[in-house]
Amino acid sequence: MPLSKYLPFWNNLTEAQRQILLSAGGERAVHKGEQLHSGSADCVGLIVVIEGQLREYMLSDEGKELTLYRLLPPDICLFSASCLMPSIQFDVFVEAERDSRILLIPSETWRALMHQSLEVSNYTIELMASRFSDVMWLMDQVLYRRMDARLSAFLLEEQALSAGDELELTHETIARHLGTAREVVTRMLKYLQTIGTVSLQRGGIRILNREKLLTLAEGSLR
Amino acid sequence: MPLSKYLPFWNNLTEAQRQILLSAGGERAVHKGEQLHSGSADCVGLIVVIEGQLREYMLSDEGKELTLYRLLPPDICLFSASCLMPSIQFDVFVEAERDSRILLIPSETWRALMHQSLEVSNYTIELMASRFSDVMWLMDQVLYRRMDARLSAFLLEEQALSAGDELELTHETIARHLGTAREVVTRMLKYLQTIGTVSLQRGGIRILNREKLLTLAEGSLR
Repeated sequence: MPLSKYLPFWNNLTEAQRQILLSAGGERAVHKGEQLHSGSADCVGLIVVIEGQLREYMLSDEGKELTLYRLLPPDICLFSASCLMPSIQFDVFVEAERDSRILLIPSETWRALMHQSLEVSNYTIELMASRFSDVMWLMDQVLYRRMDARLSAFLLEEQALSAGDELELTHETIARHLGTAREVVTRMLKYLQTIGTVSLQRGGIRILNREKLLTLAEGSLR
Repeated sequence: MPLSKYLPFWNNLTEAQRQILLSAGGERAVHKGEQLHSGSADCVGLIVVIEGQLREYMLSDEGKELTLYRLLPPDICLFSASCLMPSIQFDVFVEAERDSRILLIPSETWRALMHQSLEVSNYTIELMASRFSDVMWLMDQVLYRRMDARLSAFLLEEQALSAGDELELTHETIARHLGTAREVVTRMLKYLQTIGTVSLQRGGIRILNREKLLTLAEGSLR
């Protein structure tokens, strides 16, 4: 288990602390679509992404989703251990978006280390600050950017993640990511098709003009 | 300077650490409307609210504001020391919403303590987790709640903060808090007046029916 690769403070831990982490952490394979964490009542521990891709999202009372961010190797999911921080009063959900390999560090193990190692507690601060930045970026998007810009940015991100121009995405799926209605996505995709940036196909979308999408993604209410 | 009242970990600091805080922290009066912090390039330090009321908000490229939360005694503003956390890549702004007294703990002082005291670093985690919760709550509001519910919730909060039914607020001010356009606020306030929950007056709003506002504030897209 190459924990040193994922935990930047590894070299500053004592031998005893390393042993605690090594014996507590469990590596496992998870399947695409598997739910790894469901809200703050759930406290599985920190999830280190070794292979694959996870998605963190929030869920409204009415069941509407919004993707907060994706986690790729060597990212670490902190909110799956939200019980470590009593002030966390919100629910995030984590699912595997592809077949993945993860390493789970139990919450209790992390808690113990957070209270005995300045390295671990200061790293936790950095980790949270980084996720906070992602969420604030998203807030800015949701508030101030038009749906055409958000959809274009999302399609470009998907293209980068899938490393191809053919995206297997239904309108329903995109709507869930963006926290909007399917009808809104369908209307906007038709518009993007009209201006020649994508072509719509059964069960998917093909990117035709990356440059144009980039311009749209950068556009805002100005 | 009653730092022990504001820093829950005070009793667990060493005498030397307490002295560092006491000699570095500076108390001062700030006037209503004074800007205390402007984005991440600015790193004045942690602001402890001793008296009065501060407002933390974000600002879009187009100058549109959104109130993130208010800080009342004994709250501590962490993001005015955002340079402590290199991963913070977003800008928040802090202004005094009333004449206030604050205590400023310089960023460098806090950084030094964060790296020598587990109490301070773990408290920083709690502080950030608590602000993160506020922001996630707001995200939920912005995404999933109708403007009538958000406006009602805002008016109730203002009523609690001002301890009276007469709120001196322009439509422009409310729009800034909620991150929307003045016209949207005016339309919605007229609707609230029609159903007898508020009466609109020159330069202000009078709350007429708190119960009805509460019901509206709790309502959502259901």
